[in-house]
Amino acid sequence: MVDFSRTRALFQIPSGVVYLDGNSLGPPLRDTAAKLGHVVDREWGGELIKAWNSCGWMAKPGRVGDRIARLIGAPEGSVVMGDTLSIKVFQAVAAGLAMRPERRVILSDTGNFPTDLYMVEGLIALKDRGYTLKTVEPQDVEAAIDDSVAVMMLTEVDYRTGRKHDMRRLTETAHAAGAVAVWDLAHSAGAIPVHLEQCRADFAVGCTYKYLNGGPGAPAFIYVRPDLADVAAAGLSGWQGHAAPFAFELNYRPARGSERMRVGTPPILGLAALEAALDVFESASMDELRARSIELTSLFIEEVERQAPQVELFSPRAADERGSQVSFRHPDAYAIMQALIAHGVIGDVRAPDVLRFGFAPLYVSLEDVRLAAAILADILRSDLWRDPKYSVRQAVT
Amino acid sequence: MVDFSRTRALFQIPSGVVYLDGNSLGPPLRDTAAKLGHVVDREWGGELIKAWNSCGWMAKPGRVGDRIARLIGAPEGSVVMGDTLSIKVFQAVAAGLAMRPERRVILSDTGNFPTDLYMVEGLIALKDRGYTLKTVEPQDVEAAIDDSVAVMMLTEVDYRTGRKHDMRRLTETAHAAGAVAVWDLAHSAGAIPVHLEQCRADFAVGCTYKYLNGGPGAPAFIYVRPDLADVAAAGLSGWQGHAAPFAFELNYRPARGSERMRVGTPPILGLAALEAALDVFESASMDELRARSIELTSLFIEEVERQAPQVELFSPRAADERGSQVSFRHPDAYAIMQALIAHGVIGDVRAPDVLRFGFAPLYVSLEDVRLAAAILADILRSDLWRDPKYSVRQAVT
Repeated sequence: MVDFSRTRALFQIPSGVVYLDGNSLGPPLRDTAAKLGHVVDREWGGELIKAWNSCGWMAKPGRVGDRIARLIGAPEGSVVMGDTLSIKVFQAVAAGLAMRPERRVILSDTGNFPTDLYMVEGLIALKDRGYTLKTVEPQDVEAAIDDSVAVMMLTEVDYRTGRKHDMRRLTETAHAAGAVAVWDLAHSAGAIPVHLEQCRADFAVGCTYKYLNGGPGAPAFIYVRPDLADVAAAGLSGWQGHAAPFAFELNYRPARGSERMRVGTPPILGLAALEAALDVFESASMDELRARSIELTSLFIEEVERQAPQVELFSPRAADERGSQVSFRHPDAYAIMQALIAHGVIGDVRAPDVLRFGFAPLYVSLEDVRLAAAILADILRSDLWRDPKYSVRQAVT
Repeated sequence: MVDFSRTRALFQIPSGVVYLDGNSLGPPLRDTAAKLGHVVDREWGGELIKAWNSCGWMAKPGRVGDRIARLIGAPEGSVVMGDTLSIKVFQAVAAGLAMRPERRVILSDTGNFPTDLYMVEGLIALKDRGYTLKTVEPQDVEAAIDDSVAVMMLTEVDYRTGRKHDMRRLTETAHAAGAVAVWDLAHSAGAIPVHLEQCRADFAVGCTYKYLNGGPGAPAFIYVRPDLADVAAAGLSGWQGHAAPFAFELNYRPARGSERMRVGTPPILGLAALEAALDVFESASMDELRARSIELTSLFIEEVERQAPQVELFSPRAADERGSQVSFRHPDAYAIMQALIAHGVIGDVRAPDVLRFGFAPLYVSLEDVRLAAAILADILRSDLWRDPKYSVRQAVT
């Protein structure tokens, strides 16, 4: 039995704040700064260039990848860290296209996070060989899989609604049609149990600044199914993915395994902050976190629907069909969220009308959920959100 | 007149160490950890998601880029930070190829850092349209520029010899032949004065963990000449380079200016460490640093040649033909460098036989130079480096 009051105490959350935006940026641990300071002063400052060996920096992308692998049902050695999710999506899709040279369609859905679609647009423009990005509604993906599809690229949990795709079934369907399956785990890793190996996903990518609490712009990860790792093309073929990076050969030779997906020099400070954050995942299994997450999200839906009929549920009602977030719709979502934030409940909005709330069991309590629902109901009941100050736009929300 | 003993005191270098490897990884400042701690605890922990606005995180890639711009002769707004140098090389070359759609040759030289060549190999494989990477000896570049060349891609300062290309002249020659000029400033930025705008370079890229002391794997930069910035294709078209990232449109529309070269979520912790390091550049102009660098490298050459005839100068003897490093050759470079490191002089080796020493005026003193030369001479004279323990290979050196 996990003691969630103990895990919660490990995080830095300002007093008086109910933080329901860990699906956008998780909070730091109380000891993140100290651990980073150690890396700066003792490793970087103390060892200087030698730290690449003596402190294991060069091997960090794989070592940290192994820790992520345990959270997403992937075997050791199949996950490496680096770059951003956008870059890793590009590599995964490029590798998939190279595996199906006779096909010209990348299939995705409108619930995919836009950067995944943009990166594929850019890849298509670079390749200049008549590729098409076909984007259908999330519920229409399965029917759209046919033998023209080279790569099916989906985000498992929809960033707007929290609706969860059936990874196992869609991957099976894709494979039956001869397509390669690329999964984006941005809203899955650290939030819900993922079984990449069991589902036979070909590639998966994700960021680590949401439920994994790695910090703003923390390094991304990429998974390559082990039987593909020695044949997959890196696409972005940098020296860190070379078979012998320090031989400084003039020609590229890919490293064995998922290491070939490394590109440039690894971001050691970003990896250090992420490592500090991963320590807390040792205290609970993903199944325990999932059970608690369902308890939290279900309670929030129940409390909001009971007290705040002005908003409409936008997430699946069935717990097993959603990730670890709950969204509601209201035409004035923006002003309502600003009022909520002013009253200590931090969620975010997605245009045009979505109020989005993330529930990270490691630090969100049942009391937080009740309080957030009550404050939301209060703001709606009192029309407090109509105060013009809540309509002033911020660049990012 | 710059007080270099004062700038030196700002850096963390272990006592007893002469650090001549800042051309590989610059040391941290004494206050880097504290400044990072502030960003973690006050900005990230204190503001959580709101920090993207309230702490200016979203604008950081351009703001920090402006600080780099001042060091490389680039106007405000022309430089943005993010990713790694490998990724930025890819974007610059891809943009250059799109500007010359009828040409099929990328010209580079054997003195380019291998990752630049590898990334272009990967780009060519992705494009699959018969592109060729033509690699000539550094001294043959000018003669190899002809009207088949779409992009000339060079690193200004050779990572092995420190030999400096004539950026102005080669860019002029490239332009006269209708080619696009891409410059890699990895060993230039913060080391020597660079005049990107005056030289009319089309694109430039660089890393910030060498002479700029940004930390291991610190974010890279890319410069786009202002008159190209609204037409250049980003190649890697991520949401942060979108005209309206938070509109979450399904189709990509590039941002105006160099901002379109942003890809994924910016690495805020890496940028924070870099910002701390850039503060020290306020205390000296690049011309002052260059004068001191020439004093340091010239003294080192003189002292080594006087005391250690066993090694052969590999860098240009003329100061204006080299960057801020000096290389010597010896068949047993590896063991000699291990012996040097064991005696407190940290440089590095590049296969097969290059002893490489970087001189960062901000923290390397004339006394350091004399001491390093004397210890090197001593090790060679005494055959100390023949001790078998100095031949044990490390993964990285």
